[in-house]
Amino acid sequence: MTDIKIKVGVLGATGTVGQRFILQLSSHPVFELAALGASSSSAGKSYYEAVSGRWKQMHPIPSQVRNMPVHECVPGAFSECGVVFSGLDSGPAGPVEAAFREANLRVFSNAKNYRRDPLCPLIVPLVNPSHFDILPHQRASLSLDRGFIVTNANCSTTGVIVPLKALEDAFGPLDIVMVQTMQAISGAGYPGVSSLDMLDNIVPYISGEEEKIEWETRKILGGLKQNNTAFDLHESSPMRISAQCNRVPVVDGHLSCVSVSFKKQPAPSPEQVAEALRSYTCEAQKLGCHSAPAQAITVHHELDRPQPRLDREWQNGAGVNVGRIRACPVLDVKFVTLVNNVMLGAATSSVLNAEIAHKKGFLS
Amino acid sequence: MTDIKIKVGVLGATGTVGQRFILQLSSHPVFELAALGASSSSAGKSYYEAVSGRWKQMHPIPSQVRNMPVHECVPGAFSECGVVFSGLDSGPAGPVEAAFREANLRVFSNAKNYRRDPLCPLIVPLVNPSHFDILPHQRASLSLDRGFIVTNANCSTTGVIVPLKALEDAFGPLDIVMVQTMQAISGAGYPGVSSLDMLDNIVPYISGEEEKIEWETRKILGGLKQNNTAFDLHESSPMRISAQCNRVPVVDGHLSCVSVSFKKQPAPSPEQVAEALRSYTCEAQKLGCHSAPAQAITVHHELDRPQPRLDREWQNGAGVNVGRIRACPVLDVKFVTLVNNVMLGAATSSVLNAEIAHKKGFLS
Amino acid sequence: MTDIKIKVGVLGATGTVGQRFILQLSSHPVFELAALGASSSSAGKSYYEAVSGRWKQMHPIPSQVRNMPVHECVPGAFSECGVVFSGLDSGPAGPVEAAFREANLRVFSNAKNYRRDPLCPLIVPLVNPSHFDILPHQRASLSLDRGFIVTNANCSTTGVIVPLKALEDAFGPLDIVMVQTMQAISGAGYPGVSSLDMLDNIVPYISGEEEKIEWETRKILGGLKQNNTAFDLHESSPMRISAQCNRVPVVDGHLSCVSVSFKKQPAPSPEQVAEALRSYTCEAQKLGCHSAPAQAITVHHELDRPQPRLDREWQNGAGVNVGRIRACPVLDVKFVTLVNNVMLGAATSSVLNAEIAHKKGFLS
Amino acid sequence: MTDIKIKVGVLGATGTVGQRFILQLSSHPVFELAALGASSSSAGKSYYEAVSGRWKQMHPIPSQVRNMPVHECVPGAFSECGVVFSGLDSGPAGPVEAAFREANLRVFSNAKNYRRDPLCPLIVPLVNPSHFDILPHQRASLSLDRGFIVTNANCSTTGVIVPLKALEDAFGPLDIVMVQTMQAISGAGYPGVSSLDMLDNIVPYISGEEEKIEWETRKILGGLKQNNTAFDLHESSPMRISAQCNRVPVVDGHLSCVSVSFKKQPAPSPEQVAEALRSYTCEAQKLGCHSAPAQAITVHHELDRPQPRLDREWQNGAGVNVGRIRACPVLDVKFVTLVNNVMLGAATSSVLNAEIAHKKGFLS
Repeated sequence: MTDIKIKVGVLGATGTVGQRFILQLSSHPVFELAALGASSSSAGKSYYEAVSGRWKQMHPIPSQVRNMPVHECVPGAFSECGVVFSGLDSGPAGPVEAAFREANLRVFSNAKNYRRDPLCPLIVPLVNPSHFDILPHQRASLSLDRGFIVTNANCSTTGVIVPLKALEDAFGPLDIVMVQTMQAISGAGYPGVSSLDMLDNIVPYISGEEEKIEWETRKILGGLKQNNTAFDLHESSPMRISAQCNRVPVVDGHLSCVSVSFKKQPAPSPEQVAEALRSYTCEAQKLGCHSAPAQAITVHHELDRPQPRLDREWQNGAGVNVGRIRACPVLDVKFVTLVNNVMLGAATSSVLNAEIAHKKGFLS
Repeated sequence: MTDIKIKVGVLGATGTVGQRFILQLSSHPVFELAALGASSSSAGKSYYEAVSGRWKQMHPIPSQVRNMPVHECVPGAFSECGVVFSGLDSGPAGPVEAAFREANLRVFSNAKNYRRDPLCPLIVPLVNPSHFDILPHQRASLSLDRGFIVTNANCSTTGVIVPLKALEDAFGPLDIVMVQTMQAISGAGYPGVSSLDMLDNIVPYISGEEEKIEWETRKILGGLKQNNTAFDLHESSPMRISAQCNRVPVVDGHLSCVSVSFKKQPAPSPEQVAEALRSYTCEAQKLGCHSAPAQAITVHHELDRPQPRLDREWQNGAGVNVGRIRACPVLDVKFVTLVNNVMLGAATSSVLNAEIAHKKGFLS
Repeated sequence: MTDIKIKVGVLGATGTVGQRFILQLSSHPVFELAALGASSSSAGKSYYEAVSGRWKQMHPIPSQVRNMPVHECVPGAFSECGVVFSGLDSGPAGPVEAAFREANLRVFSNAKNYRRDPLCPLIVPLVNPSHFDILPHQRASLSLDRGFIVTNANCSTTGVIVPLKALEDAFGPLDIVMVQTMQAISGAGYPGVSSLDMLDNIVPYISGEEEKIEWETRKILGGLKQNNTAFDLHESSPMRISAQCNRVPVVDGHLSCVSVSFKKQPAPSPEQVAEALRSYTCEAQKLGCHSAPAQAITVHHELDRPQPRLDREWQNGAGVNVGRIRACPVLDVKFVTLVNNVMLGAATSSVLNAEIAHKKGFLS
Repeated sequence: MTDIKIKVGVLGATGTVGQRFILQLSSHPVFELAALGASSSSAGKSYYEAVSGRWKQMHPIPSQVRNMPVHECVPGAFSECGVVFSGLDSGPAGPVEAAFREANLRVFSNAKNYRRDPLCPLIVPLVNPSHFDILPHQRASLSLDRGFIVTNANCSTTGVIVPLKALEDAFGPLDIVMVQTMQAISGAGYPGVSSLDMLDNIVPYISGEEEKIEWETRKILGGLKQNNTAFDLHESSPMRISAQCNRVPVVDGHLSCVSVSFKKQPAPSPEQVAEALRSYTCEAQKLGCHSAPAQAITVHHELDRPQPRLDREWQNGAGVNVGRIRACPVLDVKFVTLVNNVMLGAATSSVLNAEIAHKKGFLS
């Protein structure tokens, strides 16, 4: 790390994820906020004006950001940026991110558009930074020397996959994963879910969410193949995954009930599972990344934890909380997992991915 | 049915379940509220005085009940009652219900104490009224000519087991059932769950609840054996059941995500499952019981239903709502089910059980 | 009342207020649902199709309404209707309601557009049906022999003004009224308020609401003048009114804290105020209107009542609940009042106004 | 300030307020947690054991506190403490705090017991630290050379009185204050309010709360008299105060609607009021106290602010937020004010009072 910070930009800066990027980047030791992009209706305004009435964070707009100009999301305004973070909605994200990459800019995107792209890594920073190794192939395929797109996972996938990775590392491939989520409203953006749907109520459906968990899990837990030019999608050890997703009246924090079985039998005991989760460490920690959690997975022993409101801020929202680890009468082990969907489940993943990329030399 | 109503009593009349009994029985065509019982601190007061500050229903105390005297829960005060409904807490329920039965009174209990008793039927009225046939054996074993105890199921079990019964009737024995519940706060009584645990939060644990679902399901779906003197607990076709239970910020209505597989393969399609649920009818309907729902299982086709606040009052809370029926990538079929935990999940079950018993001649 | 029901139409039938009209009118002894109107995107569809995904009531769509055709909001499709109820948004309400009146149709509107019109009565059915007497002047001014527009009040005004009317009837003109409201989310329609604004939060502002309370109160509590051709707006006894309005996380039911002082001193005691409220009866009751509450104002004596969830359904939501009547250290008396904003505060007011008009001969 | 920290104790350490004390004192530059007291059922345990199942903070128990021993609340165990903070319930607070003072210990109490005591100051740290000047008289009256009791205000009073103080400083005595509160559930402790009373509901009553606001305001805004031996209770300029208090489904943050009138007319304009609030500075700021907010009163200009969830963490919860400043049609000016009831409304007030006492020499 040099003394000179890397200039970074934020696309979709006035949206819910964009606001989180701004809070995280406003006092970052490596990155320096240099350019903000939003829709054409915001372009030309100061950030304060553009976000007026939509800033929904518990901290004020950072003072140095209030008067930064907002640009349209075109590469020219971001040419000095060593990294561009995208909090764009899936509508504009596809063409905009492609244009930025084409302009040789490095995009770390929270949008879903390129997650299934065979050239783009889908990286949960606590799980699979090894997938950065496909970037040379991405660049070569597109005849770029610097630009790339790196995506991070859907917020509900992220909370489940960190403990799954720890279990595969410790006990070999998983055979079956059953997941039921209870997802916070902040995952739907603003205005997002109507209060009439969320007071004294649950909505047992989130469009596309179950498919994301079932698909993304395989890409993330799988490896690279063909000399780092393709994803193996866990194909060497097929895994059956079933997800049921619900929207619940919680502000932040996705809680999921998970049951798993292992290929290798006899399966580990709940105590062995707890120990494997507790002792799991990830590359982001070893590299000393600024936003990495001190403890990747916090294992709770109180019977009624983790709980969204009480545990989502632990580790500054960058870790995962697991509890109620016990035997499953049907599969091997069941447990509950909590992720802060607006932190590790969104902006923190993008920022941490960029920190890892920096440490590994992909930003130079 | 004669013109003369059957006098009935309510034990635990000032509690949450007792209040529901009172609302349901205050204008019932067959039963007539004749005696109320509560703890000794309430005994001697009028009902209005005894329940002061604790009446939490959306309708006022029925006018004819306001000034009824509250008795201690001793059989003598209930000697005229043809039926006694128990909404007692599990603490007093054990000895009190036994004493009432010993005094030759017929007890329909919502408490958990005798659910696992080898003499007492555990009856979900939409599922297994055939279990009333063990009553002659219960009476004989205890040398009683009239008294008995009939229990109904835990509220979370009830919502899941009605569709399970419909599936077994249509497609033969189930092999695996996986359930994750999202349970309303009213299931915990009053004051029950602290608001600090339920605003912007979920508690992923309810003491004893998972074991109840896993155990009760087998007794209810199983049959009688040994000439109606014992329960077979589904032993002829072992079923694996795994439950995860959560408390969520919803007032009334337990929502559960269920995945099932069948013994017989190939399994029915989601469309066949939907049709089997929709066309399921139960004995309570055929007998013309007053509180029976017109439709036992309402199948919803909108992608985001059933929802607790919108659907819990359908069928006056006496039916079950099922939606999102679809293939499960791991088991055969998955779906979502909703039960009104304070109606069919509690008082309505006891009342409907008594109506069925009346129609079948067990009250004469 | 004859045996033949009066055919009625509903404008804005797919909206939140329109859905309430449909529930109330689907089994009405005097009115018969005959025509439904909505935006051009809904026109031509069956009601079931048009409202798909937006029906947010706790009861299913009435079976006889499911397949009724939805028309555009043009008078021709409603020519057989003796009454047209309008649940239109304020955008279309202005020109549409005028066109219907111009076509000699009788419009009972829940919209705000004509509340301040010097020809249109603003009638809270429990308060000022005497204002119907301006209708001959409205018709004459517009050269119509049948058509008119009658409005009802804003939902928050309605809950406050019923007790104010009872107090003026008993103790003469009020001098000062101070109101602070805590208003339910259903008052904002669907999708209305974002859940991110309403979970663990209050929004201390509702656009235009304070002005409505402050202005409408004078028109409603005032009389007619100049031979029933104008409203006196309470001008003979000026009243000072100050309102502060808040949106709170409650589904239905607007609760308000009110302090008042009287012109005439010494002021009545809290006990006298309670008695005046309890004994208040209104013309709708005397006329025997179907939707009139048995008790116009229910006075609660428990210290912590009325509460929205517990008391909003009393009297089928057609009455007002008042509690905590006590001396005010600054003004004379203070109390709390609750109105069911979607019932008496909206659709019930329109329907009850039409019932009164029918009884008084304004529909013939 | 010396390099050696002052040892401090916490009474009621396992309760809701006690937990907040522990979080604030675990990394304090002047105070060092040295002794913890709780009920006899907790005494003898480690803090971690004693608070098990009741720790409801969003941060873990500070590591250095987990294994601290919990003592009974007797002075002997706290003899080394230069300051003792009391988060005791009002039941034990009376005799325990008296015994600690009698043992020459300095008690800063959040309990209500001694707020109305003629010897004890009631200090809101942003308002009236001048009341410390009664301490010599308190000590002399009780023949103590070190011990005293200092109280801080009720949480709802605190949020209202900071802007009132700023207004009296700028524009002279207030004549009338009308307050309606919407108070968070955390103000009632744990388990406190039942979730059945707080989901989809408001409780328009908090026992004793209105009287506290009406009484405490006069003591705090008043001065000392008779050579610093008595409180004048604002008697030179009588003020009329009326409060209505409501419990609402918000976790933290008391929001209040306030209307005021001034003795001196013409009254200041809303703009002048806004400027006076914005520019208000307090002695705690001037003394450079660690926990003092940078901005005592944050004035919001967005129409819909302050909101509890968005603004309660500003200034680390140590300041007050005011918005919607506008003319009142009845009194002079009305506005909305928000206080973080668990921070400035409770533990932060006690800690900041002790910091002020330290700076002013009352701890030496």
